Amino acid sequence: MLRTHTCGQLNISNLGETVTLCGWVQKSRDLGGTTFIDVRDRYGLTQLIFNTDSDAQLRETSRGLGREFVIKVTGKVLERTNKNLKISTGEIEIQVTELEVLNAAKIPPFLIEDETDGGEELRAKYRYLDLRRNPIRNNLVLRHKMAQEIRRYLSDLEFIEVETPVLIKSTPEGARDFVVPSRMNPGEFYALPQSPQTFKQLLMVSGFDRYFQIVKCFRDEDLRADRQPEFTQIDCEMSFITQEDILNIFEGLTRHLFRHVKGVEFEDFPRMQYADAMRLYGSDKPDTRFGMQFVELTDVVKGKGFGVFDNAELVVAINAKGCASYTRKQIDELTEWLKRPQIGATGLIYARHNEDGTIKSSVDKFYNEEELAKWSAALETEKGDLILVLAGQTDKVRKQMNELRLEIGGRVGLRDKNKFSPLWVVDFPLLEWDEESGRYHAMHHPFTSPKPEDIALLDTAPGDVRANAYDLVINGTEIGGGSIRIHDRGLQSLMFKHLGFSADEAQKQFGFLMDAFEFGAPPHGGIAFGFDRLASIFAGLDSIRDVIAFPKNNSGRDVMIDSPSTIAEAQMNELKIKTTVS
Amino acid sequence: MLRTHTCGQLNISNLGETVTLCGWVQKSRDLGGTTFIDVRDRYGLTQLIFNTDSDAQLRETSRGLGREFVIKVTGKVLERTNKNLKISTGEIEIQVTELEVLNAAKIPPFLIEDETDGGEELRAKYRYLDLRRNPIRNNLVLRHKMAQEIRRYLSDLEFIEVETPVLIKSTPEGARDFVVPSRMNPGEFYALPQSPQTFKQLLMVSGFDRYFQIVKCFRDEDLRADRQPEFTQIDCEMSFITQEDILNIFEGLTRHLFRHVKGVEFEDFPRMQYADAMRLYGSDKPDTRFGMQFVELTDVVKGKGFGVFDNAELVVAINAKGCASYTRKQIDELTEWLKRPQIGATGLIYARHNEDGTIKSSVDKFYNEEELAKWSAALETEKGDLILVLAGQTDKVRKQMNELRLEIGGRVGLRDKNKFSPLWVVDFPLLEWDEESGRYHAMHHPFTSPKPEDIALLDTAPGDVRANAYDLVINGTEIGGGSIRIHDRGLQSLMFKHLGFSADEAQKQFGFLMDAFEFGAPPHGGIAFGFDRLASIFAGLDSIRDVIAFPKNNSGRDVMIDSPSTIAEAQMNELKIKTTVS
Repeated sequence: MLRTHTCGQLNISNLGETVTLCGWVQKSRDLGGTTFIDVRDRYGLTQLIFNTDSDAQLRETSRGLGREFVIKVTGKVLERTNKNLKISTGEIEIQVTELEVLNAAKIPPFLIEDETDGGEELRAKYRYLDLRRNPIRNNLVLRHKMAQEIRRYLSDLEFIEVETPVLIKSTPEGARDFVVPSRMNPGEFYALPQSPQTFKQLLMVSGFDRYFQIVKCFRDEDLRADRQPEFTQIDCEMSFITQEDILNIFEGLTRHLFRHVKGVEFEDFPRMQYADAMRLYGSDKPDTRFGMQFVELTDVVKGKGFGVFDNAELVVAINAKGCASYTRKQIDELTEWLKRPQIGATGLIYARHNEDGTIKSSVDKFYNEEELAKWSAALETEKGDLILVLAGQTDKVRKQMNELRLEIGGRVGLRDKNKFSPLWVVDFPLLEWDEESGRYHAMHHPFTSPKPEDIALLDTAPGDVRANAYDLVINGTEIGGGSIRIHDRGLQSLMFKHLGFSADEAQKQFGFLMDAFEFGAPPHGGIAFGFDRLASIFAGLDSIRDVIAFPKNNSGRDVMIDSPSTIAEAQMNELKIKTTVS
Repeated sequence: MLRTHTCGQLNISNLGETVTLCGWVQKSRDLGGTTFIDVRDRYGLTQLIFNTDSDAQLRETSRGLGREFVIKVTGKVLERTNKNLKISTGEIEIQVTELEVLNAAKIPPFLIEDETDGGEELRAKYRYLDLRRNPIRNNLVLRHKMAQEIRRYLSDLEFIEVETPVLIKSTPEGARDFVVPSRMNPGEFYALPQSPQTFKQLLMVSGFDRYFQIVKCFRDEDLRADRQPEFTQIDCEMSFITQEDILNIFEGLTRHLFRHVKGVEFEDFPRMQYADAMRLYGSDKPDTRFGMQFVELTDVVKGKGFGVFDNAELVVAINAKGCASYTRKQIDELTEWLKRPQIGATGLIYARHNEDGTIKSSVDKFYNEEELAKWSAALETEKGDLILVLAGQTDKVRKQMNELRLEIGGRVGLRDKNKFSPLWVVDFPLLEWDEESGRYHAMHHPFTSPKPEDIALLDTAPGDVRANAYDLVINGTEIGGGSIRIHDRGLQSLMFKHLGFSADEAQKQFGFLMDAFEFGAPPHGGIAFGFDRLASIFAGLDSIRDVIAFPKNNSGRDVMIDSPSTIAEAQMNELKIKTTVS
């Protein structure tokens, strides 16, 4: 090795040793003829001193060192006078006797420090420099640890990691498939998997019993703030199990990860029905770090002559604890925020529970003190609280109130990044109505099984059929989702029929799976976790971008390597394709 | 869980317990009113007995069970009278009291047994059934264990697993790139990586110090018997190291894997220079399970009037131990085999060391006893040995002799699948001449560094420049290869120039990497192993196909899912591409 130790390794126990370190110049300063340099590597930072009275060459070279030069130094470990007890090497320094510049460095375009002056675009272009910064590198080290712990937990439970193919088949359902022209089969295309769903089910048919994979998946869709065209899934499947078994095993995985990587223990790991999540939080992924549950006031407020409430399908309220002091202006701003097209509320009603015990609302014209006392009782307000009320069509008003609840929760400091609140949401609907196409879509995917007792409803009330489907939610973010699958050809055909497939289409696209079900398919089910998102929660980040080494931007571009890019005519000819862009 | 135990779990210590098993019917037989059924899962096989005198329903159902039906049974663990000590459950059986058919099965198209009657095509179409067979499933379990041990070894040495992107940039060098049209960037394409080479080097520039990844790579090339369009690499890179460090650490990984997965210890782990490998074995990946090294006879045989030898650049021989008994017919067949276009030899000369001590050659006209005694001495023959000689242009004749040596080694049983012989081949040439393009190509890749002492030769004798490059060879198969990389912009530019890139082309394609070298790139190097091939060697297989769950055939097709396939016009329109296949 070029070095004897790393820059994070030496301490007081090494005093007097002659050591060799390699690393990057973090900073350099001259104090009365002595040059001090901090040298950095992945493991830490070590102070070097160059006492160069006797060595003109060393003085010369050490003074020429700029930030980010790569150096190799040999010297003796001495005790420091000015100790820095914040870092493990802070009690020592190296008196350098030999210095070699392994590589010079131009001045980097932004500071390689925990807090940098580089803008997002510049850092993306020089991602390899941004990755030198501790916070970014630490995210990737954290991600590595998580991956190893996931594998350890699952391997210990006899799960087998099996690699499924990346070059698979495009499906008409897969409008968002990336496709890959085949040179050997001109005119034909592979698709990149949006998930290994059918392959993991086939592995169950093969008797693999317990499968997992940490695997790249791909989706060619418009990238919202927190999506990437390629993302990583922790993909799992088991045979001969019930939903209860899956919830237990993957609650176990979640606890294992938080324990071994974050040192966090969960007291509770609650379960909530989808219907309750929607009623109490207006969301299938409620942030349960804080309460502020919805209280439905519909029955309480109707019939007092206030049209907005009288005509509403649902009137729902939350208690914004301690927010009675909000000024009229603040409430007006909140109302404007709610009226933005992204949220689309028509207005906000409020009632203050004042410090003097009175309750004053924005609709006092319709509701007297006695009526408002009912509101207060329903919402369990105390002096200083603020009741916020929305009214309208049930689904819409729940979505709006969900946004409002999260906003208020954030404002009053209830969404602490260092607090973790996990939740299973269960009993999802099997189907959801899609206005655009005028038909039902599978809420999870077409392979999810309906609850046996609800199958009869498929013909009469498809929207009421519940699925054996479940999501893992942490801090209001969906981390994973899965289901007990259909393992019977007849039921799978019925499902495709209800999703609007003709028998021919179903056979053409998923015949291999339905055929497989006829050769002895075991009952099975599974789950997939979004690894990027899970890692971002562990790292305390809002975005997944900085738990990915080389992410793409919102246009799906890697600006560092300048990709995607045009390709040569000859290559297109060989692939027998043409672009239609003029 | 649906079961209390697996089918491989119960033994004599469970006698009297009431248990529930789930699995597939392996076979069923009726013996005097008692039905015996073997039920199978991933973990093993358990014998069930149905003593159905008292239960007509159970009798009915158990008799209706066909092969591969999925069942759930409950019953009591009894001691067997006819014990089968070959399997862990062979001392017990289950007296079944409850039987549930979880799924029926059609008669499978081939036998689900260790030895099957299914042809290759049929098994590929029903891959999910072929995967039920123990030998295939065991390969994948083995592969899983290898992957976990690789991660354990490297993680313990502070390597970090970092995921690099799958959607990257196409390069003109990458004629065999798979490309992916971008919907968001019409007319532009991503490429799938042939390896994460540049990204892992950037991670070194970022200070990651030790990186690894078990990662899918892609190559769109004509598929020989043992290639797949998608394959898996164990990809590793380190900073601040020498070639010696890399050889030691990855010799360690190889030893670790063989020890923990195969229970095999290596005595030797030799190193051989490329030039010696070519001279002694005619190959840069010699099978060192056996000797039979080449002996060059050029100087010994010249000048005796035999034109074939006199005109040859190289005359080379091997000693086929114990093969003197080969008949003339056998030797003629061997000669014909050597003359096939794939090998292209012009003829085969031989000399028998007979049991009576005489040596008789096929060229006795030119070589008397005294001369042949020199051959015998050079090849250290004994009675019963056969000398085989080829002559011609050095490179060609070495290749031919390599084929012959492997063939003879196989025939005399020296290529034992249960013996493992590792070898480092080092000091590869940096460049190799490509007849077709009339220029030098990088033998490894353009990022490989030349030996410093050979840099001066780049201008005068490029073919003689040696690289800091090394391959790991096991049993004549290249398992891994790597190099110390260039980390200096100047040298990298020079390298591109020698490979025929213009400065512009080099900057356009690899500018991001050369730019990165200017911001403080550490000395670094690495290695990549072919994981599929390594797994196939561990499994004792000639092909990588059965260590891959869902492989493609020689036309790059997955015949199970019928991929690649045509895609909808609408999808092509959205991607702004067209096929030019009529």
